[in-house]
Amino acid sequence: MTQAVIDDLMARQGEIRARLDAFLRLPSVSADPGFAEGMEAARGFLLDWLRGTGLSDVHLLDGGGEPAVYAAWKGAPGRPTLLVYGHYDVQPPAPLAAWRSDPFEPVEKDGRLYARGASDVKGSTTIAVEAVAAFLRVTGACPVNVKFFLEGEEETGSPSLRELVRRHGDLLRADAMISADGGRASETIPTINVGARGIAGLEVALRSADKELHSGRYGGAVRNALHEMARLIASLHDAEGHIAVPGFLEAAPALTPKQRADTAAFLLDEAAFCAEVGAAAFGEPGYSLRERLTLRPAIDVNGMWGGYTGAGSKTVIPDEAFAKITMRLVPGQDPERAVALVAEHLARLCPPGVSLRITPKSGNSPASSLSEDHPLLRAGSAVLERLMGRTPVPVRLGATVPVTALFQELLGIDTLMFGFNLPDEDVHAPNEFFHLESIPLGLRGWAMLLAELGGMTDADFAPFRRA
Amino acid sequence: MTQAVIDDLMARQGEIRARLDAFLRLPSVSADPGFAEGMEAARGFLLDWLRGTGLSDVHLLDGGGEPAVYAAWKGAPGRPTLLVYGHYDVQPPAPLAAWRSDPFEPVEKDGRLYARGASDVKGSTTIAVEAVAAFLRVTGACPVNVKFFLEGEEETGSPSLRELVRRHGDLLRADAMISADGGRASETIPTINVGARGIAGLEVALRSADKELHSGRYGGAVRNALHEMARLIASLHDAEGHIAVPGFLEAAPALTPKQRADTAAFLLDEAAFCAEVGAAAFGEPGYSLRERLTLRPAIDVNGMWGGYTGAGSKTVIPDEAFAKITMRLVPGQDPERAVALVAEHLARLCPPGVSLRITPKSGNSPASSLSEDHPLLRAGSAVLERLMGRTPVPVRLGATVPVTALFQELLGIDTLMFGFNLPDEDVHAPNEFFHLESIPLGLRGWAMLLAELGGMTDADFAPFRRA
Repeated sequence: MTQAVIDDLMARQGEIRARLDAFLRLPSVSADPGFAEGMEAARGFLLDWLRGTGLSDVHLLDGGGEPAVYAAWKGAPGRPTLLVYGHYDVQPPAPLAAWRSDPFEPVEKDGRLYARGASDVKGSTTIAVEAVAAFLRVTGACPVNVKFFLEGEEETGSPSLRELVRRHGDLLRADAMISADGGRASETIPTINVGARGIAGLEVALRSADKELHSGRYGGAVRNALHEMARLIASLHDAEGHIAVPGFLEAAPALTPKQRADTAAFLLDEAAFCAEVGAAAFGEPGYSLRERLTLRPAIDVNGMWGGYTGAGSKTVIPDEAFAKITMRLVPGQDPERAVALVAEHLARLCPPGVSLRITPKSGNSPASSLSEDHPLLRAGSAVLERLMGRTPVPVRLGATVPVTALFQELLGIDTLMFGFNLPDEDVHAPNEFFHLESIPLGLRGWAMLLAELGGMTDADFAPFRRA
Repeated sequence: MTQAVIDDLMARQGEIRARLDAFLRLPSVSADPGFAEGMEAARGFLLDWLRGTGLSDVHLLDGGGEPAVYAAWKGAPGRPTLLVYGHYDVQPPAPLAAWRSDPFEPVEKDGRLYARGASDVKGSTTIAVEAVAAFLRVTGACPVNVKFFLEGEEETGSPSLRELVRRHGDLLRADAMISADGGRASETIPTINVGARGIAGLEVALRSADKELHSGRYGGAVRNALHEMARLIASLHDAEGHIAVPGFLEAAPALTPKQRADTAAFLLDEAAFCAEVGAAAFGEPGYSLRERLTLRPAIDVNGMWGGYTGAGSKTVIPDEAFAKITMRLVPGQDPERAVALVAEHLARLCPPGVSLRITPKSGNSPASSLSEDHPLLRAGSAVLERLMGRTPVPVRLGATVPVTALFQELLGIDTLMFGFNLPDEDVHAPNEFFHLESIPLGLRGWAMLLAELGGMTDADFAPFRRA
């Protein structure tokens, strides 16, 4: 049965590619209201397409922002119900001059398909829809119950996602989620995502005087807000690269032998990794690069400013200084607690007479993890091993996938990231592309995954669902 | 003779005040091209006035920017020739809404004359011109040779002053300069300025990668330009408030017993000084507030920036960071050497893989000093003692007076600051005012100073002139 579906998918490559090209031609840039028509067109395209596949209940879900596209097939009672996540919005194409071709006119070259959104994530979203559609077309049924949830605000930080899930939680109820976003880590070594770091942030504002002071009249006699900010920021790490906020690392659990073995199985070349972006390696001693990037927390100042920043010179002692800080968290670290620890540390070091104002940022998200015996992970691993001829290496993402944490929080379900994009595809940059060989590979993978999950029951997922 | 001149000045208070009011009505804002007419009008006012006093050679001196107003009287052969410095330009009046009266319509209230430029420095400039004019009017001669040099770019940092002095050096040749700018430190305790701190500056730019990096993909693995900048800035001082740049303090000479005694004679209340501007006291231990402000160097970061500084959050690891640094220098410190020491210190601490670019700022100026036995100082002290009934305390300015350093460098002459404005007059701020009692006091003081200097010869100044 599954082989017939795969054969059908392989036979229809031209048709699938034409559909992806049509999808890519729609400039669905969510960040820029000037692209509202493109957003509208992409939603219309998806509604028409999904309706033509045999999926039912195809409609838009409104959360107050850009609506999401929904479609369901519920013809497999007793089988698991999978929410399939993708997004139809894309990053702005700027800077346009850096593109070698029109970002909204797909161009094939050297086995790559160039277009904005090709990699992130219209390519993998198309693969997911085509795989389900092929089951319905060839066999009249899908091995599992499926609910598509295709978001329109992923590239703008999902501002109304929480509200959207709140309003439509009943419709979205599922045993687990499979995401078309969150791609492969390597072209040759199969990997499977088992988690992502969390995120938390705060803004720091210092005030050292009522107003800017003249450095000739006050220099040498009073505190300078920028000096104090520099001291505070410098205090976040020690010279060796350890995070120096008391209590912060204590909440990050020691790496397990399995975690160390998994990261060692998929080593990153630190010199090449840094050289590619001209960066200098730095970070917590005693951990490999991949461990630092995925299994250890990080604190980064994202912006810092104060005083006179224009041309020339202004001899002021700044009275105010500002910094934006975000941290990447690992399982075991509570985002609110992490912010509190940093805030307490800064308050301890802030000298008398200087006022410190901390504003926690919204949108915090804890790290997420798939437990080792989760059916999603078992199914995904089995499929990748058959597909790639090699046991997949469990990997974690250094970045945060807020949608994963949000669906865990609001719907109590875990997510398997099963996208097929690769790390070199210039996501968010000019000349974004998708490796064309990923299309047949992804179609096969998704068909096999749906079949694999179809061999399970919803009861298999029950132990892993929360409330 | 001098008493007759003073009697005449006192009898003409109404006339003098009317002239000052007319001068204040002219909006001579040099920083804003929208006030070009006001600048032109102020120059015309001064040319007419000076021509009416019996001064000769009244004309504009062009240096490529706002011209200066020049006038001379050279009828005292053998007597010293004094360059008299003032400026006719004023600060912009913004923020206008904070003014209780029109900044360009002088208003008298509670013994104060409110108007932009009343304190800085049309009041004291008027006093200087009136005193010379009174000698010419009453006695037909001035006790010394006088050359007025009234600048039009003081409030914009004197961009063409160097060129102006270069072009017109012959005309400006003198034995010494008396400045109407640089006022009194106290209403009750007579003080005499014997020097000012110098200034030097640099800009620091760091680059830690080829581009901004995503904190999810790189956080914990690479250097962050803002972290490095914070470390570098924090390293300029130790936790106690000492400048921590190796070699920097070594060039600042130990305070002499006389300097310590002079500053002790005119103590500043540190708590009140800081409370007035809401600042926290901080600085080199072991020195009084006034010593730190005038006899010890200071390093201040005037501006610092990098990364994302807009609204909300952007999870980047910034690749660039910037800081503007200026320092106040004391006699013995060479500005170029001071910049080099800071640059070397930063380079030493900058980690491998992070590039550091130092741009020394133009307009450096060494500290200036009047030697203890300079005829200007002897004359000024004697006059202030008679005028105020108390020996004046020698004080130094914490700020820099570039015109003083420039005239020392280009014309080899020293400057006595003999302005009568007071520190509370909201200079550069809304509701600037001049204490009206300073007008008769200043007129008497200037008349007495001219007479005192008239008792000297140009030979008395020769040992203090440099090439």
